[in-house]
Amino acid sequence: MISVGIIGASGYTGEELVKILQKHPEVQIKSLTSRTHAGKKIDDVFQLTTPLGGTFALPTIENLSDCDVVFFATPNGVAMNMAETLIDKGIRIIDISADFRIKEVDVWEKWYGKKHASPSLLSKSIYGLPEIPGQKDRIRDALIVANPGCYPTASLLGLLPICQGLSKQKIIVDAKSGISGAGRNLDSTKLFPEGMDNFQAYAVEAHRHYPEMLGILNDNNADLDILFVPHLSSMIRGIYSTIYLQHHYKKIEEVIAKYTDFYKDSPFVEISKDSTFPKVSEVEKTNICKIALHSTTDSGRGPNLVILSTIDNLVKGASGQAIQNMNIMFNLDEKLSLI
Amino acid sequence: MISVGIIGASGYTGEELVKILQKHPEVQIKSLTSRTHAGKKIDDVFQLTTPLGGTFALPTIENLSDCDVVFFATPNGVAMNMAETLIDKGIRIIDISADFRIKEVDVWEKWYGKKHASPSLLSKSIYGLPEIPGQKDRIRDALIVANPGCYPTASLLGLLPICQGLSKQKIIVDAKSGISGAGRNLDSTKLFPEGMDNFQAYAVEAHRHYPEMLGILNDNNADLDILFVPHLSSMIRGIYSTIYLQHHYKKIEEVIAKYTDFYKDSPFVEISKDSTFPKVSEVEKTNICKIALHSTTDSGRGPNLVILSTIDNLVKGASGQAIQNMNIMFNLDEKLSLI
Amino acid sequence: MISVGIIGASGYTGEELVKILQKHPEVQIKSLTSRTHAGKKIDDVFQLTTPLGGTFALPTIENLSDCDVVFFATPNGVAMNMAETLIDKGIRIIDISADFRIKEVDVWEKWYGKKHASPSLLSKSIYGLPEIPGQKDRIRDALIVANPGCYPTASLLGLLPICQGLSKQKIIVDAKSGISGAGRNLDSTKLFPEGMDNFQAYAVEAHRHYPEMLGILNDNNADLDILFVPHLSSMIRGIYSTIYLQHHYKKIEEVIAKYTDFYKDSPFVEISKDSTFPKVSEVEKTNICKIALHSTTDSGRGPNLVILSTIDNLVKGASGQAIQNMNIMFNLDEKLSLI
Amino acid sequence: MISVGIIGASGYTGEELVKILQKHPEVQIKSLTSRTHAGKKIDDVFQLTTPLGGTFALPTIENLSDCDVVFFATPNGVAMNMAETLIDKGIRIIDISADFRIKEVDVWEKWYGKKHASPSLLSKSIYGLPEIPGQKDRIRDALIVANPGCYPTASLLGLLPICQGLSKQKIIVDAKSGISGAGRNLDSTKLFPEGMDNFQAYAVEAHRHYPEMLGILNDNNADLDILFVPHLSSMIRGIYSTIYLQHHYKKIEEVIAKYTDFYKDSPFVEISKDSTFPKVSEVEKTNICKIALHSTTDSGRGPNLVILSTIDNLVKGASGQAIQNMNIMFNLDEKLSLI
Repeated sequence: MISVGIIGASGYTGEELVKILQKHPEVQIKSLTSRTHAGKKIDDVFQLTTPLGGTFALPTIENLSDCDVVFFATPNGVAMNMAETLIDKGIRIIDISADFRIKEVDVWEKWYGKKHASPSLLSKSIYGLPEIPGQKDRIRDALIVANPGCYPTASLLGLLPICQGLSKQKIIVDAKSGISGAGRNLDSTKLFPEGMDNFQAYAVEAHRHYPEMLGILNDNNADLDILFVPHLSSMIRGIYSTIYLQHHYKKIEEVIAKYTDFYKDSPFVEISKDSTFPKVSEVEKTNICKIALHSTTDSGRGPNLVILSTIDNLVKGASGQAIQNMNIMFNLDEKLSLI
Repeated sequence: MISVGIIGASGYTGEELVKILQKHPEVQIKSLTSRTHAGKKIDDVFQLTTPLGGTFALPTIENLSDCDVVFFATPNGVAMNMAETLIDKGIRIIDISADFRIKEVDVWEKWYGKKHASPSLLSKSIYGLPEIPGQKDRIRDALIVANPGCYPTASLLGLLPICQGLSKQKIIVDAKSGISGAGRNLDSTKLFPEGMDNFQAYAVEAHRHYPEMLGILNDNNADLDILFVPHLSSMIRGIYSTIYLQHHYKKIEEVIAKYTDFYKDSPFVEISKDSTFPKVSEVEKTNICKIALHSTTDSGRGPNLVILSTIDNLVKGASGQAIQNMNIMFNLDEKLSLI
Repeated sequence: MISVGIIGASGYTGEELVKILQKHPEVQIKSLTSRTHAGKKIDDVFQLTTPLGGTFALPTIENLSDCDVVFFATPNGVAMNMAETLIDKGIRIIDISADFRIKEVDVWEKWYGKKHASPSLLSKSIYGLPEIPGQKDRIRDALIVANPGCYPTASLLGLLPICQGLSKQKIIVDAKSGISGAGRNLDSTKLFPEGMDNFQAYAVEAHRHYPEMLGILNDNNADLDILFVPHLSSMIRGIYSTIYLQHHYKKIEEVIAKYTDFYKDSPFVEISKDSTFPKVSEVEKTNICKIALHSTTDSGRGPNLVILSTIDNLVKGASGQAIQNMNIMFNLDEKLSLI
Repeated sequence: MISVGIIGASGYTGEELVKILQKHPEVQIKSLTSRTHAGKKIDDVFQLTTPLGGTFALPTIENLSDCDVVFFATPNGVAMNMAETLIDKGIRIIDISADFRIKEVDVWEKWYGKKHASPSLLSKSIYGLPEIPGQKDRIRDALIVANPGCYPTASLLGLLPICQGLSKQKIIVDAKSGISGAGRNLDSTKLFPEGMDNFQAYAVEAHRHYPEMLGILNDNNADLDILFVPHLSSMIRGIYSTIYLQHHYKKIEEVIAKYTDFYKDSPFVEISKDSTFPKVSEVEKTNICKIALHSTTDSGRGPNLVILSTIDNLVKGASGQAIQNMNIMFNLDEKLSLI
């Protein structure tokens, strides 16, 4: 049995972690910490189908010392301050926040607007997207896994199979997110009457997930850039990424075959055999990423490829992927408790 | 022209007041005050179709001294502290908060959990439900109009025509509200992912609108009590009140005729000629209250009447009714800017 | 392994059956029939996370002859015409439609407006609400299980523990349903723009679930009647029943204890230990019914009890309960594939 | 007074026409026709705040002969069969369907999959986007106005001011629509449970609004092509178009100034002075198009421009624009009844 702790457990990703881990046959939840809810009964704060019992603890090292692995479901800036101490005690870390997602300290500090507290750990952390070729082996041995952001997960899964052969270009990623993506912390833009029956772009070319995606993409092809525009859509969960790029394949069937082959060992990625239109509801509350590929008419500079990629932002885009990473770290079937 | 000030203008009811008053031919908006947004441009905070211009002021008496009438779109507890000074300066008040809705100080203090700052003004304030017989005359002369709550508006309009003849009973009011009814102040239960695709009762027999409704009802019939259960429904705006009572009429046609006659001079109340099922969308963004009446089979103690009553909580349940009251206070057509 | 057939598989309840049965370790899905989709690939019609394979068959007896049990997920009027032939072949039936829910032929024919095709089978069918005392034994031996309607499930679970001791009265059941409750057949009132951001009562004292509920209630207490008003709420799934009745208990704690004891062997019913406010989202996509109990002030005729009862209409209100019944019929753990 | 007829009045655009025309001081609604609802009371079919009176007529020429102008709110293929007869009788036509939007018969027949019934009228019809320079004069004299589609309206308004100077390219139009855009005719994909809390692309490079947009764009610049991907978003009304193109301006301020100047005589187009993020709710139930402009970093081939353009699909995208066209045709203020 793996002893698990969750720090900052009271947000949406923390609650989702608990819901999935309750069904995990190899996991014992040892400690849930929450500064806000410390001392309160867990079942009074969460809406769990099966009660969990116990109370929230304060996020101290003592309250986590029994754990084999600790999940950070905290705002950015918390994990980087506690990571070193936990690692010294032999506790492995899966960070769902953004503290360890970007390798270069200066890039991280520019986009997150603060000093990084553990720059030496950045190079030791492993980016937890298990579908990157060879990544499962690195995750297996990692002390710190930096769980990817929700937009980068949907978008990179849509781009990884094809990015290496592409000519220099700025790929357009027009992404739509459910409103839970913005978290449970309070902000009037997240109120029901603002989000219901509405739609809006935000942060045009200014979202922190841009350097995160770009880093992984440039590991594969230094010629690529991204124009990333996120939008808020009137739904609870889900990321829908519509990606536009120029390629050189003759037939869409070649592209589909390439994607299918690329993900043949990735149980959570489903490539549509035809050019269909996946819906967010098809992946809701699952760890699945559904991808469909559409070729377009040639317009002189070669045909465009339109990639439709959709996930549940709280599962494959956060807590489900974190548990998939945990399964890999502890040599378990990566699908355990996720299907 | 009537010079108008709005205190606490930045909430949902404040914004709705501005949207309606912009179309009012006899009104000049002199001052919008907001402690939170003082100094900010109004058009940066509100989402108005036609820009208004100007900035939010601090809620001081000086900033309101030009006004003929001031609307309080504030949380409870603000109006009662400023009312006396404004009245002394000859400024009339329409209070959309709850400070002046209940006549008895002890009842108010019990339900609102604080001392009332201006108990002597309670008896001078007029309850701003213009559809109560004779009430328009009282509103016309009022210094303070206490604008009714959203639940009491929908429920009392459904009960007023029939309540006088009823035998002693506890009337059941099962009411459903859109989530804007809870206001724009921050609270995690009002976040989009909590309200979307959901439904929930709350405050069973413990909502502050209960004594407000009961007071008006008992003015008409001291034998009546109410069992009031409010619910949150996944919609932005709207109150839907399903009311159950026992009556003594032989035929539903008599009841419908009684209601139609009762509201013959009330341009904002529509009584369905048949036993139809009004929808919230039919009254959305209007000052209309739609009412339908259904008789049920006799079960020994006489037939039950089921009353369906629906309004927009931000219009007839708040800002629209406040402007209807203003029109009456200033001897204008009560429909001005509301149809 | 149990061999299962589903007739009329292409509606919401059919799809939900498939989703749950895919996870069932003791079930083999032998045949899905659909008059509309016969010959089409199942995975082109359904949105399943894991593809099922195979095609829809025509609803002939031959296509079902391998089955141990057949679910009817059809409109009313289909099961009563096929039931006899299936039973003669030794195939057991779980009917999710309304054909066998009411014992009296004349009552059925009055409310469903047609002749019943198999009146002799009505008395042999068992009402599939396993939480009725003694009902699991009857279900275990049944040839035909009449799976309850969604409104009766939520409402009866809220009423069963207390109904026997009640004095003569008309209990008020104010119920709210998600729009999937109306099914996948086409009707403009079910279009997205009609249901989104809206609320409406319908069928006041005229819904077919009324005689179904009343029959079970009168089995326990012939003095009771029901005033049932259903409403459509802007949500996909869920029933929320707010029930009002007069009782004679001194303390709400006694009532809560009575309910808790009544359901001590019912793994899918959760009684709130305090007077809380369950939300539809807490039971979404589960087979759970959550119930909370609220006492009210005395108003002369004794205190009222307010019962809040919520289920997912497609799971405990239809397909989940059907599978719970199947588990009982085949001597399996009733929770199998449902938790 | 203008005498108005509406053919096919019972869909969403027909109902929206009636709602707006009820407030129009210069219009008399003479005839509403509906094949489905002929003989039914209008107020039983529509949900109007103020009852209209009268019944639906059959769509015969006799029932329209009193009219000065007739709106077609019909499915495609109806207007082209009735147009000639109406024009012969001196009745002008505003066609909200697609029958007269494309000038070339062969293009129309290819995309709409049928023979055009009045090819000779195609060249006489005027495309009813009044914001095209010089178009108001052409609309004023037109016998047939082809009211634009909802996607083309939002997208062309976002492109018109800049398209002439652009170099050869395929502009990406990633557009999102509320579900009322699909109409009131029945189709299971439009059911509430399919659209609620969901998101989906459809018709990648295969939507009939593509040739319509392209035609107008190529009138201005023959070098341009469009990659158009429409999506369904979980909202009742609204189009949100996110447009990506490559331009040659040094500063975003120049672009904003160009747009502001281009629309200086267009009361329904609002250009954001800064690079803001308009929301669909800001234009809901208005005839306004809000546009914001965002420049992006240069990536070698020049900076990209991201254009955000939003309208209400039933107002500026259909019935509101149709009435704007009628106002122009009859020499009235184009804003009449629309602000």
